[in-house]
Amino acid sequence: MSTPRDPDTTFLTADALLEHWQGHRRLTRRVIEAFPDDRLFTFSAGGMRPFAQLATEVLQMIAPTMRGVLEDEWSAGGYGEPGPSDKAGLLAAWDEADGVLANSFARIPAKRFREQANAFGLWTAPIYTTLLYLIDNEVHHRGQGYVYLRMLGIAPPAFYERRAQLPEPGETDAP
Amino acid sequence: MSTPRDPDTTFLTADALLEHWQGHRRLTRRVIEAFPDDRLFTFSAGGMRPFAQLATEVLQMIAPTMRGVLEDEWSAGGYGEPGPSDKAGLLAAWDEADGVLANSFARIPAKRFREQANAFGLWTAPIYTTLLYLIDNEVHHRGQGYVYLRMLGIAPPAFYERRAQLPEPGETDAP
Repeated sequence: MSTPRDPDTTFLTADALLEHWQGHRRLTRRVIEAFPDDRLFTFSAGGMRPFAQLATEVLQMIAPTMRGVLEDEWSAGGYGEPGPSDKAGLLAAWDEADGVLANSFARIPAKRFREQANAFGLWTAPIYTTLLYLIDNEVHHRGQGYVYLRMLGIAPPAFYERRAQLPEPGETDAP
Repeated sequence: MSTPRDPDTTFLTADALLEHWQGHRRLTRRVIEAFPDDRLFTFSAGGMRPFAQLATEVLQMIAPTMRGVLEDEWSAGGYGEPGPSDKAGLLAAWDEADGVLANSFARIPAKRFREQANAFGLWTAPIYTTLLYLIDNEVHHRGQGYVYLRMLGIAPPAFYERRAQLPEPGETDAP
């Protein structure tokens, strides 16, 4: 028999979580870019929302969640508002949310991740659960964007490719 | 100025990660169940694989990954083999992988999560990255299953519902 693992064993540090999340955000940004400008806002399947609306939902969750985590003020401010109406605007809003995430995340106190909070009056759970929800929601909707791209005859970016800089065509790819 | 956070700050413990993963697996199981038996193996969009194949990929990654994590033996054994050919078989294989996950995860030593490993000769990364990849891959493909279900006119299970037991119709829902 091996010794039971200490229940406080770290799976993931806060810094590693942020890096993981930012990798997902880089990939989702590439998925936005892969859509033709008009199809981004118009194409959908099965009565679902176009990818621009899914991406807008994902990015609009960041600022209110960070405010809730840092100030325990859980109002939806900004979430659900009409989003950008063209690709350039969506990418700019995406990048702005990246800045909010990076600046806010660095200021979350260590003990905060395991504290319970009633997020937006919707659920009561440890803060880490609410943060994981945002990442899961992004991966979920991005997967739907992959279907849309395939239906449009466009090859999506590689799912495992999360680096900030991709090699240029012809360059050696040494990650 | 606040004090910088200790870089070893825990975002998520190993036990919490397993619980989070198992919640995702419960939801994906419900997505498999939501498909009509034949459409599960035949319906697809954009030239992609039917959901049964996506779910088979997801479940076949578990045993080889756990073997790699526990024994540093990274062979694909089982992965890529022909999967189950009906819904009952797929659900049985899904549940079997749940058992492998629970039994194996409990035996992963605390220090192992941050060790580097060359997973399947494909990438070298900390073990936690490889485990997160499996969860991300499941959420990604499940999101695609949601599109298939919507295209079939079927409402998918709620994305946020990860509990083992759902209330019966008419029961009070007190999570």
